[in-house]
Amino acid sequence: MMQRLVNGSPADTLALADRAVQFGDGVFRTLKMVGGAVPFWLRQLDRLTHDAALLGIEAPAASDWLADIAELHRQGVRDAALKFIVTRGESQRGYAVPDVVKPTRIAQAAPLPAYPDTLQSDGVAVRWCDTKASWQPRLAGIKHLNRLENVLARNEWRDAAIFEGLMCDRDGAVIEGVMSNVLLQEGKALVTPKLESGGVAGVMRSVALEAAARLNWSVSEININPERLLRANRVWLCNSLIGMVPVRELAGRHWESHPADQQLLEVIRTMEKEETACF
Amino acid sequence: MMQRLVNGSPADTLALADRAVQFGDGVFRTLKMVGGAVPFWLRQLDRLTHDAALLGIEAPAASDWLADIAELHRQGVRDAALKFIVTRGESQRGYAVPDVVKPTRIAQAAPLPAYPDTLQSDGVAVRWCDTKASWQPRLAGIKHLNRLENVLARNEWRDAAIFEGLMCDRDGAVIEGVMSNVLLQEGKALVTPKLESGGVAGVMRSVALEAAARLNWSVSEININPERLLRANRVWLCNSLIGMVPVRELAGRHWESHPADQQLLEVIRTMEKEETACF
Repeated sequence: MMQRLVNGSPADTLALADRAVQFGDGVFRTLKMVGGAVPFWLRQLDRLTHDAALLGIEAPAASDWLADIAELHRQGVRDAALKFIVTRGESQRGYAVPDVVKPTRIAQAAPLPAYPDTLQSDGVAVRWCDTKASWQPRLAGIKHLNRLENVLARNEWRDAAIFEGLMCDRDGAVIEGVMSNVLLQEGKALVTPKLESGGVAGVMRSVALEAAARLNWSVSEININPERLLRANRVWLCNSLIGMVPVRELAGRHWESHPADQQLLEVIRTMEKEETACF
Repeated sequence: MMQRLVNGSPADTLALADRAVQFGDGVFRTLKMVGGAVPFWLRQLDRLTHDAALLGIEAPAASDWLADIAELHRQGVRDAALKFIVTRGESQRGYAVPDVVKPTRIAQAAPLPAYPDTLQSDGVAVRWCDTKASWQPRLAGIKHLNRLENVLARNEWRDAAIFEGLMCDRDGAVIEGVMSNVLLQEGKALVTPKLESGGVAGVMRSVALEAAARLNWSVSEININPERLLRANRVWLCNSLIGMVPVRELAGRHWESHPADQQLLEVIRTMEKEETACF
């Protein structure tokens, strides 16, 4: 069961002329709604607007998204994986953007994924993907609709015991998980791949980095190779739906909980409380 | 005015649940219809099926596309830029492909672009794009729906005197035009960028290479840097709508017609006659 709004009105379809269909010409964000409240609401809208601007797309006003939330609420949506999409809008044939083009705003509400209760306590098993992350500086960090490489990477495995796959770029640097960002805890430091040539800069990634900074840990975005990742005290996966999930197992390496884990998670919980919008 | 069919039926919309909308998860081909006839019909379907297979998508049978052509014909379509799209189909949230998924077949008919009659005789002015072609071997050569980099590259210029932009990759190798393939005539040789890490392998590109081979020219897919391109006797742009168009001007370099031009074009005209499907 999925509720969908296009430009504020209930709809299950999109115009074929929309550039999302033709070119994947748009951006999106995934948000978690629990009991009608959305953690990191403002960050999500900020990132969506930021990404849209990088592609030359004018993002909708916050009031439009609030109207969508109100409409979804009216439809009974309380707990959901929300997806907000902004496309460049409709155009005729060809890559050129018309002088006048009206962005399309899409809000989708899907059921929250049924993750086990032990996801965050027990951690997850992950694998390396053969599919490499693209090199494309113009799109790096942007959560855009060109997601074929994630589709190909995710479909390298069907074993339900594997929660996530990690992707490296052409130079062998770790970039991200198929659906998550990756952070390494190294003593009192939190490091994450820099996303200058690929990958998506997720909201939870920014939250985790800020949480570590609040703890006075060292924080940096750097080149990380797989060997360094395997030596970390802790490897975290994060996105807005899973929150912070530790890696339990990767390529024969096993991780146990680390004393600093709870410090980090505690600060993130505090930030989440501070930054949750209740509608 | 644009005619559109989804799975054979007239439609102007696509399900939001379609993975083309969510991820750009599909492939396409652009075909030219003139007087109801389509040049290189079988090559187009072959490439579409080939590309779909590389992404694990089952392409529609030729008979389905023939039914679409018949329906468009019934609607009065005779001269058109056709776009055939195959998406992976609909799914719930997430990158994973469901065990059962039914591809979506889309046929669009747009007016043929209004190119000047002198396009092929006079040639065109082109520019270098700042936007680089992605490095992504898993998608290289495939005409897939993740076309944001083409959108960004095309929107670097608005000067109508510039017909096309050329894109290089991270290593400085020429890959393609925003909407065309690039071929260099070097004496009795025709060379074109190899597409191992990016770019789209167009049907006209394959036609031109075969035509050169029929002339007993040397034919190769190689690394081409901009300096080599500027030294060529002739630089050709090609796609299914423009056919073969010579570059007249690029970065201060001007080209005149070359004696070998007409030989190549003559063979291509012959091939087109041999391979045009009349419906």
